[in-house]
Amino acid sequence: MKRARSPKVPSLSEQPVSELMQGIGRAARAAAQVLALATTEQKNRALGAAAAALRAQRLKILAANEDDMRQAAQRETSGALLDRLRLDAGRIEAMARGLEDIERLADPIGKRLAEWTRPNGMRIQRVCVPLGVIGIIYESRPNVTADAGALCLKSSNAVILRGGSESANSSAAIHACLAAGLEAAGLPQTCVQLVPITDRAAVGHMLADMADCIDVIVPRGGRNLIARVRQEARVPVIGHLEGVCHVYVDRGANLTMAKDIVLNAKMRRTGICGSAETLLVDSGCAAIYLAPLIKTLLDAGCEVRGDQVSTRVDARVKSATEQDWYAEYLDAIIAVRVVGDLDAAIAHIRRYGSQHTECIVTDDGAAAERFLARVDSAIVLHNASTQFADGGEFGMGAEIGISTDKFHARGPVGVEQLTSYKYVVRGSGQIRD
Amino acid sequence: MKRARSPKVPSLSEQPVSELMQGIGRAARAAAQVLALATTEQKNRALGAAAAALRAQRLKILAANEDDMRQAAQRETSGALLDRLRLDAGRIEAMARGLEDIERLADPIGKRLAEWTRPNGMRIQRVCVPLGVIGIIYESRPNVTADAGALCLKSSNAVILRGGSESANSSAAIHACLAAGLEAAGLPQTCVQLVPITDRAAVGHMLADMADCIDVIVPRGGRNLIARVRQEARVPVIGHLEGVCHVYVDRGANLTMAKDIVLNAKMRRTGICGSAETLLVDSGCAAIYLAPLIKTLLDAGCEVRGDQVSTRVDARVKSATEQDWYAEYLDAIIAVRVVGDLDAAIAHIRRYGSQHTECIVTDDGAAAERFLARVDSAIVLHNASTQFADGGEFGMGAEIGISTDKFHARGPVGVEQLTSYKYVVRGSGQIRD
Repeated sequence: MKRARSPKVPSLSEQPVSELMQGIGRAARAAAQVLALATTEQKNRALGAAAAALRAQRLKILAANEDDMRQAAQRETSGALLDRLRLDAGRIEAMARGLEDIERLADPIGKRLAEWTRPNGMRIQRVCVPLGVIGIIYESRPNVTADAGALCLKSSNAVILRGGSESANSSAAIHACLAAGLEAAGLPQTCVQLVPITDRAAVGHMLADMADCIDVIVPRGGRNLIARVRQEARVPVIGHLEGVCHVYVDRGANLTMAKDIVLNAKMRRTGICGSAETLLVDSGCAAIYLAPLIKTLLDAGCEVRGDQVSTRVDARVKSATEQDWYAEYLDAIIAVRVVGDLDAAIAHIRRYGSQHTECIVTDDGAAAERFLARVDSAIVLHNASTQFADGGEFGMGAEIGISTDKFHARGPVGVEQLTSYKYVVRGSGQIRD
Repeated sequence: MKRARSPKVPSLSEQPVSELMQGIGRAARAAAQVLALATTEQKNRALGAAAAALRAQRLKILAANEDDMRQAAQRETSGALLDRLRLDAGRIEAMARGLEDIERLADPIGKRLAEWTRPNGMRIQRVCVPLGVIGIIYESRPNVTADAGALCLKSSNAVILRGGSESANSSAAIHACLAAGLEAAGLPQTCVQLVPITDRAAVGHMLADMADCIDVIVPRGGRNLIARVRQEARVPVIGHLEGVCHVYVDRGANLTMAKDIVLNAKMRRTGICGSAETLLVDSGCAAIYLAPLIKTLLDAGCEVRGDQVSTRVDARVKSATEQDWYAEYLDAIIAVRVVGDLDAAIAHIRRYGSQHTECIVTDDGAAAERFLARVDSAIVLHNASTQFADGGEFGMGAEIGISTDKFHARGPVGVEQLTSYKYVVRGSGQIRD
């Protein structure tokens, strides 16, 4: 008798990337159909169990993260990247709490968004449904695996996670906890899939070849990643571009409030997209307000790059160039400019801004309303710090980012923004004339 | 004295298409800023004046249309295209009434979609804003010029209209009436621009090179146009794909109601996207219901392409092939198939449907709810004709089409769907911890 040869199972590296990705896509599409009908209790059970698994598997996750950190250090990775990559007990606990926060959020799916009856008796409902399959492409932060996976799960979307190669081990360990949560809730583990290869071609497939099994792509990362996604994507994208956020101090401002808001907007955390990058000061109050505002920033350790007027205020102020008005520093640097009046501030923001978040400081209600109406950004604030640009601070719960698009979702993208709707019509035999 | 040479004004044909289109784009972007702040009264005045101009310029429009018709006839154009192209007094009056209908619609812009106060006292509003600049690419129907222009105007979006070459003269004459309306209301005529060339390269520019001045593209036309737009667009697209709509007659159906709905869904108008293309009959009632349903269709002049069971019912039934289950006939043809049960019907729709509009006919409430929950189409109906898939029939007013996307807008796309929102936050000096 001839011995049967065991069939050759292709290893990951041998299996063509396109085949692997198509398989992941088909599995996600099938999982999405199950998830669309899952109950709130089931989804919450999965989230709760995943949080418990994160805590129980803490040591395993830390060990995986150590592997990633060691490899990153060998590649002479920058300190900022190493910090984004690093996990510790506190960060794992924060991830687990994040899942529990999402567990507590209201379930948007099935919500009746509108309801009316037609003269012919047909009852029409607009009902919230999931988008379907979401592809998340991210870089070094391994916690995105937990956050993004959980937000998609709560909104009944199947998700394909494609993390950065630097965080591959950490993400896999975190993903295992999400899979355990799904299993505990009786949901298919394919609801949350992690692409098991770090081949860059995998991203190309997600962007261009999987339109039939990915409904929307969410990129989370730096400028280069977003640019690549915008360039290559053949499916819709929810992506936030830069946050070149402005604070405009109007002649009607209270100086103390202006100093507090400017300092907080710039310096509370400089690396987030809602941090202020440019300070505009009304010429009608610059003579009195400009110097103390600049001094407050300089004294807090912020580099100030100013226009001609500003450089005369303090020797420490450097000269700004045209490029500074466009800059998203994400650092302790601010551009400062004196503008003729409110309308000149609006014109500056229109020209140089990124339609993310802008603030006016003033006690003049009419000036505030003019600013709020005319500045076309996702978030416009009156007398409050731009650092409030955050789904949690808005009371919307966790978010996947801040969208600067006007299409589909704008501003914080939380569970409600990861949905679509359908029209459900109940009749009694109506036909059309 | 040297005589000054008059500067050379490039003619349209000499001016590069890209330059022309960029100029149109910049003008649209500027107009959008004005339009975003226009009052409801101003927009309504423009619509009313445009309707009056359509009536006053009736003869001019008819003469322009005659030119288009003559040229089309010389090119041996199909009868269907000629019919889409043709204008008469009735169609012009219908266009004018269409504008007045849109004038009467509620203005979505500025509407507070949600409003809440944070524990720190910040008051947050989600306010409806326009998308910005909309590009409409359409084919032979000149009435789209009026309809689409008016919908964009009402939703405060500047619009770039790019009609088909066949209807160039008719569209220009209609566009002149919209321009007159804008002028009468003191709004820039660049709020509604018609691309003055029929060069196909203009479409390419709109799709790929004008992302900084076009926020969304709406294609209106046949399969080839939509396919080109999906392939080339570098900006978001709201487009409806095919309407492969299904009627499923369940074992719990009332036969009389089923006959009425099937006949209406297929035959009331066969050329619209909401017309039924496939009839699915539950095997639990096929023995009694299939023959009368098929007879009703055949007697009304509908060609029936059936599965094996259906071909045995009546000699006039032709054999369906696999392709028939995917077909959007837009004609007096229907595909008929007997399915095992409700879940088999859902599976058929999932496999072959286009997520547009599907109907279940049944008196069994549980079966209806299962169908409505599990069929993932823009519109799902219980005991009502698929021909109700229409913004007007939904009470939403005029629409620019039915979206089968889940991203941004789904179902009828009317003035509300041509909008975005922004967050307006009013504080009293709040800074973030």
